Amino acid sequence: MRVTTVSPLAPARFPDVPKIAGVEAAIGRAGYYAYDRPDLVLFRCAAKTRAAGVFTTNAVGSAPTDWCKAALKAGKGRARGLLVNAGCANSFTGAVGDAAARRAIAAAAEAAGVSPEEVLAASTGVIGVPLDDAKARAVLPAMGARLAPADWRAAADAIMTTDTFAKGAGAKTKIGDARVSIAGIAKGSGMIAPNMATMLAFVFTDAALSAPVLKALLREATESSFNAITVDGDRSTNDCVLLFATGQAGHAPVTSADDEALSSFRTALNKTLADLAIQIVRDGEGATKLVKVTVSGARDDRSAKIIARTICESPLVKTAIAGEDANWGRIVMAVGRSDQPMAREKISVKFGPHWAAKNGLAAKTYDEAKMTAYMKNAELDIAVDVGVGKGRVVMHTCDLTKRYVEINGDYRS
Amino acid sequence: MRVTTVSPLAPARFPDVPKIAGVEAAIGRAGYYAYDRPDLVLFRCAAKTRAAGVFTTNAVGSAPTDWCKAALKAGKGRARGLLVNAGCANSFTGAVGDAAARRAIAAAAEAAGVSPEEVLAASTGVIGVPLDDAKARAVLPAMGARLAPADWRAAADAIMTTDTFAKGAGAKTKIGDARVSIAGIAKGSGMIAPNMATMLAFVFTDAALSAPVLKALLREATESSFNAITVDGDRSTNDCVLLFATGQAGHAPVTSADDEALSSFRTALNKTLADLAIQIVRDGEGATKLVKVTVSGARDDRSAKIIARTICESPLVKTAIAGEDANWGRIVMAVGRSDQPMAREKISVKFGPHWAAKNGLAAKTYDEAKMTAYMKNAELDIAVDVGVGKGRVVMHTCDLTKRYVEINGDYRS
Repeated sequence: MRVTTVSPLAPARFPDVPKIAGVEAAIGRAGYYAYDRPDLVLFRCAAKTRAAGVFTTNAVGSAPTDWCKAALKAGKGRARGLLVNAGCANSFTGAVGDAAARRAIAAAAEAAGVSPEEVLAASTGVIGVPLDDAKARAVLPAMGARLAPADWRAAADAIMTTDTFAKGAGAKTKIGDARVSIAGIAKGSGMIAPNMATMLAFVFTDAALSAPVLKALLREATESSFNAITVDGDRSTNDCVLLFATGQAGHAPVTSADDEALSSFRTALNKTLADLAIQIVRDGEGATKLVKVTVSGARDDRSAKIIARTICESPLVKTAIAGEDANWGRIVMAVGRSDQPMAREKISVKFGPHWAAKNGLAAKTYDEAKMTAYMKNAELDIAVDVGVGKGRVVMHTCDLTKRYVEINGDYRS
Repeated sequence: MRVTTVSPLAPARFPDVPKIAGVEAAIGRAGYYAYDRPDLVLFRCAAKTRAAGVFTTNAVGSAPTDWCKAALKAGKGRARGLLVNAGCANSFTGAVGDAAARRAIAAAAEAAGVSPEEVLAASTGVIGVPLDDAKARAVLPAMGARLAPADWRAAADAIMTTDTFAKGAGAKTKIGDARVSIAGIAKGSGMIAPNMATMLAFVFTDAALSAPVLKALLREATESSFNAITVDGDRSTNDCVLLFATGQAGHAPVTSADDEALSSFRTALNKTLADLAIQIVRDGEGATKLVKVTVSGARDDRSAKIIARTICESPLVKTAIAGEDANWGRIVMAVGRSDQPMAREKISVKFGPHWAAKNGLAAKTYDEAKMTAYMKNAELDIAVDVGVGKGRVVMHTCDLTKRYVEINGDYRS
């Protein structure tokens, strides 16, 4: 289905995303969609680039996520290329899908002049259909010839499926005295409950970081970004976040994730991933509200996240928000069904600055008119305290609207 | 919100439900709804009646579920009465709600001429508002005077909230040579993911069964009925199933759940509860399809149930079904995100008689035209095998439609 209406929660414009020394890209059209749109991106990174990835924990997985995991392990994080297609997930396609992925990767490697084991791959689209690699192979040689410093906006456009806007984020920071840049793009709109976790995100930096450092930083940044968003609770077979470091920034290579020189880089990376993750929620299928849910007072952060996820994925909470109804009783219900430790006589719920419930009871100051006015905002803050400990988490979700049902009742056709 | 359209999946008529010797009921209007409808039911059971209950595992719970658990425990299953109201859940109402429930129960006991500790209670409706017990107390004396052999249809009508049809089921069976009858009513439409879950069900029999036997039989029957359905994955604060046995059938009392005399009664009870549970799914908010999901080949039955629940609660699966789209890739996705043991190269998916996927790949016999025709049925069978063991479960759910969003974006108002 071709999506034509842009999400009402979309940012005003595509952000300024810095160029990354050592990263080139080319955009093509393999023809995985019947209509004219780009659907293939080839990236080439400088020699000595290191990469790390986090991948879906969905047990079905996909040919490209299987490939990436094996390639990153075998090559100890060495990576020179990345091939991304939209329109076909190449998941649940067995040996046929694996072989198709390998042929496409081989063609990408040849086009980029690197070796196949250094090329990573990501696919997004329909599950159960093997990748028609011939379509990619037909256009890759010409794409190889067009490789040039990455145009992030064009690359972000080419990887969209049901997305209604291109997603990018970037940062400039320092490692020691060296100026370092970070650039990222992402896609995702439905089947979003990453628990690495069909979202894809690709982040590039010119920093010089070893593969283990990249892996540690990526895992940390993913936990509070992509693993802290949910659109529909459905975790895709193909989710993946890849982080590439070209080492062109001119500082001494960092080989320990605990190195203090990383402190501002770490902050900038976390911020970039969180920005991309929230853009995915802003593009949640049919979404009209961006909802930030903060859970505090849980036994520990892990317990807080389970409670927050239960609230964020409750169809009754999400439809109430779509209806601009401050139905806090449903939030209390969701908290209760999370099966986490809580003191029910201490549960409190706040919408923005307005208390809905305090210490196990409807708030005495509850004012339906003020609450109804607050619910009309496009961005909502819901804070819940469960009164047993110091665990705390922030999670982002969106509302569940008729448009979600419409989009998803008619996707394959 | 007043519901006026009956579910397209509703049974043609309310079934014939037998009278149960020793059970009387009276229907009233306390006024928990602004419009004219019955919203209160008082039951009185014969002396020596024993009862058992299964209650929501939602940690928030409610005043009436708390009361029932304590009363059944203290009275070792002795129960003479039951007061049920629709329109107010009396959940998350603290000590104020507890006191209101006690006053209503005391008035019910007085009206029925029994003692308060022998009266159970159930409430359904909005969360966070204490029960206005004065409204119940005002009408209970007149209801006491009207107690008469239960009119199941009228009782089932009085306990509905967003339900679009009254739910009842019954059976006639034998214990030894004695004819025994079972009668049950239920309500529920949204916030349905019972895991004893706002569904309520009340089942009565004239069998003579001890409280421990009732408890054992009820737990067993609940597991494959109410605990095997889901509308929206939201487990209510007030769910409860109560089973009452009046002992008027004239057989020797049964005091062991393993007694062979129970074999046909057990089957009849399981069937009655399963019938009521499936009626709740037929009345799932906005539902247009009743979907039976069978998962086999799981490590064990428990694992099969987690996989089935993940499929049944996946918004992407449910919206595809609403769109009459045999999007089996989403079923595979849901299987994969259940985090259960599976052999992905052996996963098979069947829609009715049509294979969609076989042994980890799209089925070679897959015929889009046949599949599309099948999906137009109002009742669908989806069978999934995950290829690792002998675990098997059957679960029922419904589709997720725009009407669900509409109903739930506008419930409180």
